[in-house]
Amino acid sequence: MEQEFSSSLLEGAVTELSRLPGVGRKTALRLALYLLRRDENEAVALGQSIIDMRRGIRYCRVCHNISENEICDLCADPSRDSSVICVVENVKDVVCVERTGSFHGLYHVLGGLISPIDGIGPRDIEIDSLIERAASGTIDEVILALSPTMEGDTTGFYINRRLSALAEHRPAVTRLARGVAVGNELEYTDELTLGRSIVDRRPFD
Amino acid sequence: MEQEFSSSLLEGAVTELSRLPGVGRKTALRLALYLLRRDENEAVALGQSIIDMRRGIRYCRVCHNISENEICDLCADPSRDSSVICVVENVKDVVCVERTGSFHGLYHVLGGLISPIDGIGPRDIEIDSLIERAASGTIDEVILALSPTMEGDTTGFYINRRLSALAEHRPAVTRLARGVAVGNELEYTDELTLGRSIVDRRPFD
Repeated sequence: MEQEFSSSLLEGAVTELSRLPGVGRKTALRLALYLLRRDENEAVALGQSIIDMRRGIRYCRVCHNISENEICDLCADPSRDSSVICVVENVKDVVCVERTGSFHGLYHVLGGLISPIDGIGPRDIEIDSLIERAASGTIDEVILALSPTMEGDTTGFYINRRLSALAEHRPAVTRLARGVAVGNELEYTDELTLGRSIVDRRPFD
Repeated sequence: MEQEFSSSLLEGAVTELSRLPGVGRKTALRLALYLLRRDENEAVALGQSIIDMRRGIRYCRVCHNISENEICDLCADPSRDSSVICVVENVKDVVCVERTGSFHGLYHVLGGLISPIDGIGPRDIEIDSLIERAASGTIDEVILALSPTMEGDTTGFYINRRLSALAEHRPAVTRLARGVAVGNELEYTDELTLGRSIVDRRPFD
């Protein structure tokens, strides 16, 4: 069989859709047939939005978050506190932190975590540019908002060492609090986290 | 929050992707960020293939399979046996039967099955056009390749009755054999299917 479907247009769409992560040819066919059943405008809007996004989005020169301009909207926002940088692993984490509404400073997107097993070293992620920002002398605090995993801890440890080595105007380095998840029952909290939440206990107020 | 992401282009793509069946906003964001990491050409090819497919594909006037022309490639192929029609529920089933390589006739895509519970009656699917094709006098056999479900059986029963009522040149009506799946162990075959395979037993040759 030179092609599986009676239409090369369907064949093309299924092939492209099946390149997406987690989408096999069966799912791709299901999605394609779904789009064929829907209004033409809807399918065209989907296709066009993917093209526009890929062509229009670049990465912020300062914080490496996704952006439509050279400097992203967050970095360009004068109402944000430019003395605090929240360091995150990736673009998704910026969304997560923004959703909390608890942070009003700037971000720095590393684009990954140090992971010797995966061959990712400090030079492969945006650490040098972070140190450069911190060395500018306008940063008072760097919050390490990294996952509490082996890679997150390693990366945090490394960044902290680099920042501590700054000659002058060394920013404070903080990390996310670890403890019992809000709404979770103690019974279902793992021992490590519970232990940490006792060590890190705070005055009751 | 007027929008969740710092980029309206990302926002747009995530919104459109999340309209797909089985894709929530979380998955949509994952897909969008994946496309941002990949080569621009790949994302543009995906978007364009969706637009081209939706704009270019119509349904065959004869068999209602998807097609790029008024008559689909299968119906237009003179090497296929035009005296046999295989009736299937949907476009996907055409692909399934074609993959077997065991059928060389034409198709008729119903576009659904009769299902009173879902409010789908005989007029809502392509049954009248099937009867018309059969009444033309050139069809010797109609194979009902419908799922062995309540809806498939109901639809098959209805079509058989309509075909039997044809005044002249009534085509033979057949259905798919039911029995033990090739490669399946008897132990794991359900009782109904096993029972049917005994009733429908064939000479050992």
